[in-house]
Amino acid sequence: MRIDIITVVPELLKSPFEASIMQRSIAKGLVEVHFHNLRDYTTNAYKQVDDYQYGGGAGMVMMIEPIDKCISELKAARDYDEVIYMTPDGETLNQGIANTISLQKNIIILCGHYKGVDQRVRDQFITREISIGDYVLSGGELGALILCDAVIRLIPGVLGNETSALTDSFQDDLLAPPVYTRPADYKGWKVPEILTSGNTPKIEAWREEQAYKHTKNRRPDLLNE
Amino acid sequence: MRIDIITVVPELLKSPFEASIMQRSIAKGLVEVHFHNLRDYTTNAYKQVDDYQYGGGAGMVMMIEPIDKCISELKAARDYDEVIYMTPDGETLNQGIANTISLQKNIIILCGHYKGVDQRVRDQFITREISIGDYVLSGGELGALILCDAVIRLIPGVLGNETSALTDSFQDDLLAPPVYTRPADYKGWKVPEILTSGNTPKIEAWREEQAYKHTKNRRPDLLNE
Repeated sequence: MRIDIITVVPELLKSPFEASIMQRSIAKGLVEVHFHNLRDYTTNAYKQVDDYQYGGGAGMVMMIEPIDKCISELKAARDYDEVIYMTPDGETLNQGIANTISLQKNIIILCGHYKGVDQRVRDQFITREISIGDYVLSGGELGALILCDAVIRLIPGVLGNETSALTDSFQDDLLAPPVYTRPADYKGWKVPEILTSGNTPKIEAWREEQAYKHTKNRRPDLLNE
Repeated sequence: MRIDIITVVPELLKSPFEASIMQRSIAKGLVEVHFHNLRDYTTNAYKQVDDYQYGGGAGMVMMIEPIDKCISELKAARDYDEVIYMTPDGETLNQGIANTISLQKNIIILCGHYKGVDQRVRDQFITREISIGDYVLSGGELGALILCDAVIRLIPGVLGNETSALTDSFQDDLLAPPVYTRPADYKGWKVPEILTSGNTPKIEAWREEQAYKHTKNRRPDLLNE
């Protein structure tokens, strides 16, 4: 999978791709990630990427021209499955969307900043608008990181233990049951006896019951879908 | 505001705090962020922070002891308003939660990894569990970044233009209206005439109408709340 990220702050994206699962997926050759600095596609000497909004009001708007130039250059080199814009008013990311995108070959992710991009960018170039949640961030870069991580970990071969992703929360519309590790007794706080019983079928039944209870208690909306 | 982040991959967190608004808030002395490497709180030579889960199954679990030691050390030095655990089964982050946390003085954010932390950590030390959305990430670090960014930008003095945050999506339960900037005509794609009319009351009315329509179209759930 190839991911091209268009941004005004490429330096922000650096460390997360150099650590943990994203780094390993790149090192294994399973994923290729390229950052494109929007300022490299500007036409004036100030490398201007934003301007005041028409009609007045606080906050700057990202201009269409540098974005058009960058996306056009990428599209001339290869086909893309999606040109994704990270924006708080997009479709809310969920595990299903992450699964779908993890099957794609080439995607572009455009990171919004300030008040967002000129609406004509959205109308003309964007195929999918994604939000990571109902909160406002200082830019789309953090959203892009979330999307990349959620997607990359689903690509076969990225996680060491393939079965691990399947028992995560949301993969079966249930939250995960509680987990425990050594020591069995820490300051008098004990691990539930069933987990040290060695009775695998009973343990599985307990886990399912706990996952269901936990979901009903915390996120009844997931059970009604 | 002081934020202490407990993590097994502090290097992942580096670049986002050195760029954009998070960097500026720290440079201005409005926010202090400290990373704590959980491996510095381990007791054995292997600096072990995780172990197999009781009852069997794929995925490792973060051990209680290093977390207890790290949190206890922090709490001995100052009072904390919240000890937050980033987890996909937590309360879903929204703008209201970000607003509330932005008023706090000292918070601890614990980043989960692998299958998560030993349940006893959650039972004994955590005061608030937060999820950034219904998807699984490779670790809580990216969630911690999102929470920090969403919260930090709300702290007075962090954003250059105070009024800017107030017209963002979600601050009034409406999505933001479309925005445009120069040029007024780009490849034949034009800015709506109303925005270049100079008639401020009409522009405001148009924006409100567009925000309402956009919200009704994309996120009717926001209007029913």
